[in-house]
Amino acid sequence: MRATLYGGPGDITVGERPDPRIENPTDAVVRVTLGCVCGSDLWYYRGVNPHALGPIGHEFIGVVEQVGADVTTVWPGDLVVAPFTFCDGTCANCVAGWTGNCVNGGSFGNHGIDGGQGEFVRVPYADATLVTVPGGGHSDAIMKSLLALSDVMCTGHHAASSAGVKPGDTVAVVGDGAVGLCAIIAAKRLGAERILALSRNPIRQTLAREFGATDIIAERGDEATKLVLDLTGGTGVDAALECVGTGQSMATAFGIARVGSVVGAVGVPHDSVVPIQTVIFRNVGLRGGVAPARRYIPELLGDVLAERINPGLVFDYETSLDDIDDAYTAMLDRRATKALVRISA
Amino acid sequence: MRATLYGGPGDITVGERPDPRIENPTDAVVRVTLGCVCGSDLWYYRGVNPHALGPIGHEFIGVVEQVGADVTTVWPGDLVVAPFTFCDGTCANCVAGWTGNCVNGGSFGNHGIDGGQGEFVRVPYADATLVTVPGGGHSDAIMKSLLALSDVMCTGHHAASSAGVKPGDTVAVVGDGAVGLCAIIAAKRLGAERILALSRNPIRQTLAREFGATDIIAERGDEATKLVLDLTGGTGVDAALECVGTGQSMATAFGIARVGSVVGAVGVPHDSVVPIQTVIFRNVGLRGGVAPARRYIPELLGDVLAERINPGLVFDYETSLDDIDDAYTAMLDRRATKALVRISA
Repeated sequence: MRATLYGGPGDITVGERPDPRIENPTDAVVRVTLGCVCGSDLWYYRGVNPHALGPIGHEFIGVVEQVGADVTTVWPGDLVVAPFTFCDGTCANCVAGWTGNCVNGGSFGNHGIDGGQGEFVRVPYADATLVTVPGGGHSDAIMKSLLALSDVMCTGHHAASSAGVKPGDTVAVVGDGAVGLCAIIAAKRLGAERILALSRNPIRQTLAREFGATDIIAERGDEATKLVLDLTGGTGVDAALECVGTGQSMATAFGIARVGSVVGAVGVPHDSVVPIQTVIFRNVGLRGGVAPARRYIPELLGDVLAERINPGLVFDYETSLDDIDDAYTAMLDRRATKALVRISA
Repeated sequence: MRATLYGGPGDITVGERPDPRIENPTDAVVRVTLGCVCGSDLWYYRGVNPHALGPIGHEFIGVVEQVGADVTTVWPGDLVVAPFTFCDGTCANCVAGWTGNCVNGGSFGNHGIDGGQGEFVRVPYADATLVTVPGGGHSDAIMKSLLALSDVMCTGHHAASSAGVKPGDTVAVVGDGAVGLCAIIAAKRLGAERILALSRNPIRQTLAREFGATDIIAERGDEATKLVLDLTGGTGVDAALECVGTGQSMATAFGIARVGSVVGAVGVPHDSVVPIQTVIFRNVGLRGGVAPARRYIPELLGDVLAERINPGLVFDYETSLDDIDDAYTAMLDRRATKALVRISA
């Protein structure tokens, strides 16, 4: 099969890999229809984070080709959403709902596991990992939203859920990447009344408003903090969602969070420091992390199919598998918010 | 009146202060019966933290002497518990239940506000701040437990509550000071089934067991982490309560917290760093801080009066007001867990 291969910083190629086959009776092999590039892929592409060489891509949807003898809930021909991490469904963490922290799990497209930026993927623990999509003949728009469930929509939901967003809340979303934009969708879906989107990019501001943002904050750093505090009568927001992972974004999130609230953080941490004095002296908590996507997908799926939420709109760039390097550079150059890769029909 | 005065590191004296009087119609003047020394008092006594010079002590119970014209719920002669912070009860933080973060509030015994280590205290916002104790003729043991409600019992409860302790949980308490010991009481009260107390002091180990600890962990640092993980099948505890505030105690709490759990932290931070990688990659959250004691006292009061909980047992040393310097040195020398100061009958 053909698959995207990581050869080191800046080195993305499409090459040949052995066709995946069933190795364990709990495996499935999925033919990937849509994959995409994640903001977190750029960290190793830029050489900032290490990553195993070989197949990459942790987000995909596709059609089941083959299943192992012990697989009972997924059938060949099924359209499935793969969460970005596979999980056994039976370990202590999975049983407690933390499927992204399965002790026997891992991420697709890492450590030799097939990536979603290739034609086929062997999926371990298929029953526990994959979510079957009911119906058929879904529009391309819905297919894109289903792909968003693989990671960014669940991760945005995790930010909102971790922060305990509830009806009537005033919520601020720090970060206007695909995850931040999905966090806006999630906050609105959970009933937030006012949603402040911190964004200085006109295209993303427009999408933020479409997703439910009521206020756009183009300022950054101390100016953003001051403006949000002014807009909330000095109190701060009921929930601050940190969707970047830098020191500045973490400081902003804690600076605008009201006393007693929880910062929902999902940005992969780079130089981020938790301001412990704010935690202790203002009772501002911190929750979040790797989203338990497998747990969230079923509850978000109905809203996607009914088009009550349209997270697929974050894909504003598209390439074929052969041109995937262009998808990386488009995101790196900020010509794209998030790039979709069409792999098979 | 006579009151304890802070004159700088190591300088605790008892001297004369003007008798407090009603300054605002919402004030009450309370005659202090019992006060005590807090672990946090030692930080400035040792010269580690700054503190305003003058009257000190933020924990006390006493009898109302006088009330201002607008005070309606507290009457002269009432026995009252004072939370360690006063609050107006009407600001956005108070309305949301965060009485320890009142925007018009503050701590007793700081910035010129009378301290609980003196004969009388002017209490601002008496209706919102003070909690009246029903009944009379309470035993000395109950009076000590009422005093514990002023801070340590509420702070221990805040650790457990912030961590979301629920029936059946396995809980670890990091820190065997008075707050850590009260956190054990709180965890048991909230239904924890197994309580691991990290303590190497034999006297405190005994009290920890009396309060409900099922296991004593005398190890520290990496050895403690390893042992707790071994005792929990490698999973970690459902709730880790951080009651110290140092880098090591924070690292231990995060090291033993299971995936998806929340560290309840109430230690005043000194060199503590939040391990952001554990937050994000293990979904271990952090909540806690200055306890909203005024909110908690009413719910804990009944259990104290019925002697279902006996937090007053943390007081294992006693002095008069004139000898209060001995209370400080006894705690500093670790001859006392927590020293009570008898101020008036």
